[in-house]
Amino acid sequence: MGRVTVQRRILRLRETGDSRRMDVLAAEEPLEIRLNGAPLTVTMRTPGDDFDLAAGFLVSEGAVGAAGDIESIRYCAGATEDGRNTYNVLDVRLSPWVTPIATSLERNFYTTSSCGVCGKASLDAVRTVARWEVASDPVKMDPSVISELPDRLRAAQRVFDRTGGLHAAGLFTPGGNPLCVREDVGRHNAVDKLVGWALREGMLPLSSMALMVSGRASFELVQKAVMAGIPVLAAVSAPSSLAVELAAESGLTLLGFVRGNSMNVYTGEARLGGR
Amino acid sequence: MGRVTVQRRILRLRETGDSRRMDVLAAEEPLEIRLNGAPLTVTMRTPGDDFDLAAGFLVSEGAVGAAGDIESIRYCAGATEDGRNTYNVLDVRLSPWVTPIATSLERNFYTTSSCGVCGKASLDAVRTVARWEVASDPVKMDPSVISELPDRLRAAQRVFDRTGGLHAAGLFTPGGNPLCVREDVGRHNAVDKLVGWALREGMLPLSSMALMVSGRASFELVQKAVMAGIPVLAAVSAPSSLAVELAAESGLTLLGFVRGNSMNVYTGEARLGGR
Repeated sequence: MGRVTVQRRILRLRETGDSRRMDVLAAEEPLEIRLNGAPLTVTMRTPGDDFDLAAGFLVSEGAVGAAGDIESIRYCAGATEDGRNTYNVLDVRLSPWVTPIATSLERNFYTTSSCGVCGKASLDAVRTVARWEVASDPVKMDPSVISELPDRLRAAQRVFDRTGGLHAAGLFTPGGNPLCVREDVGRHNAVDKLVGWALREGMLPLSSMALMVSGRASFELVQKAVMAGIPVLAAVSAPSSLAVELAAESGLTLLGFVRGNSMNVYTGEARLGGR
Repeated sequence: MGRVTVQRRILRLRETGDSRRMDVLAAEEPLEIRLNGAPLTVTMRTPGDDFDLAAGFLVSEGAVGAAGDIESIRYCAGATEDGRNTYNVLDVRLSPWVTPIATSLERNFYTTSSCGVCGKASLDAVRTVARWEVASDPVKMDPSVISELPDRLRAAQRVFDRTGGLHAAGLFTPGGNPLCVREDVGRHNAVDKLVGWALREGMLPLSSMALMVSGRASFELVQKAVMAGIPVLAAVSAPSSLAVELAAESGLTLLGFVRGNSMNVYTGEARLGGR
C-alpha cells in the first residue's frame, strides 16, 4: 500500500546551523471497522496489516476466538474525491454461529459494573469475557532470554529507524525467537495487529508465548494479552496500577523496565526459571 | 484524593542480585464522563484534576469554548460494594444556551466526510468545528527558549520521578514560563487536563502560548492544540504524517525531536524569531 511512511520537507535546527531536508514520517490515517455492515469503531493507525488489526481488535473485545469465527474481511468502497479507494474502511462479516455482540470499549466498563465504573468493574469485565485461562499456563522463561527481547524487538523495527515515530510489539517463543513483530503509531494497534495475525494463522490461544512492547504497560495492553491467552507481558517502561492488578488477578507474568540485565517483576514470578 | 500513585511489592532482578521492595506505580482508573446525565465516554486516566479533564475533553470535541458554557460539574454517586464513592463518574451540565451536541471521537470522522473516512475528512472535521484562528496568531518564540521547555517540563513532573509511568504536558508563555503542567497515564488526558484548566480559568483561546508534550505528536494532540487556540506545539519525539498535515492546514507551528539545542520544524517556521 506504500503508505507506512510519508516524506515531507522540514527545517532542521542544529548547533551546527540550519538546513532543509526531506524527513520521513510515520503514516497515520483513520481506519473505520464495521461489523456485519454496522460502524463499530474508528482508530487512528499506521496503514498496513489492516485485516490483522480488525481481527485482533475483535479478539481483544471478546467477539471472536478462532479464525473460523470470521467469515470475511474486505475493504469497503470509500472513495476520495478523485475516485481512489481510501482503504480506510473495513467490513468484517462474522460466521453465522457467532453472536454479533455490541462491541465497544465502553462495554468493558458496564457489563458487570455494580458500582458505576471503577477499576474493579474493569477487572470483572475482562474475567467475564476471557476465553482462556492464562493462570494455568505452565511455561517458564529464563530472565536472560527476556533481557534480550528489547534488542530483538528493536532489530525487527524497520519503520522506526526511519521515523522514530512508531510503537512496536513482538511475539516471542519461550526461547526468545520472534514469531511476529508489528509497528504502529498506536501502541494498542501494534498489539491488535499481532493478535489478529495469530488468530488468522489459527494460533490462538497464544499459550507459552511472551509479548514484548516498546513502551509502557497499561490496563488495555494487559487486557489484550489476557484475551489472546498470552502468559507473559514484558515492557520497556513502567506499568500502571490497574495493569498490575489485572495481571495479578489473571495470573499473567508482568515485567517492566526490562533494560540491560535488569527488570522489575510485578506479578507471576513463578514463570521465571533458570535463576 | 491520594490515588495518583499506588504502592505495590515487587521483585527486582539486577546484575547485583534479586531483591524485594515496595514500588510506586502510576494510578490508572476509568473515568466515565456524562453530558447532561447521558453517558458520553469512558477514558482510562490517572485520578486527579478530573473536572479539568472533563472540561478539556469537551473543548477538544468542540462542545464548549468558554467557562460559562459549563453550568456545573459534579461527581455522581457511583459507590463501591463497601459504600465508598468511586469518584470515577462525572456529570457535566451545559448552560442552557449551549447545544448539547452528540460528542464522540468518531463524530470527527463522519461530520464532513464525503469519502467514507480518510485523513482529509479528519482535517475537514477539525476545520469545521474550530472556534479560533490559530493561523493568524502573530506570536514569535525564540528557539533557545523552546530548547529549554523539555527540561522545564521534566522539572515540573512530580509523579514521573517516582513511577516512570506518566506522560506530561505543559503550557508555556512565549518567554518559556510554565503556566500549568499536568501528568497522566494517557497523553491525551494530560493535554485535556491543561486545556480544561485554562477554560475554567477563563483563558481560552490560549493565544501566543506553547504546548510542550513529553512524547510524540499525533493527529489527536494537534487537534487538541488547535481546538484550544494554541499556536505552538513542541514534542520530544516524532510527529505522525496526519499531525503534520493538520498543523500545516491550521497554521500551527509544529516542532518535533526537541532535544538539547536541536529540533525539527515541521510547520509554521515564521513564528521562530531570534535566529
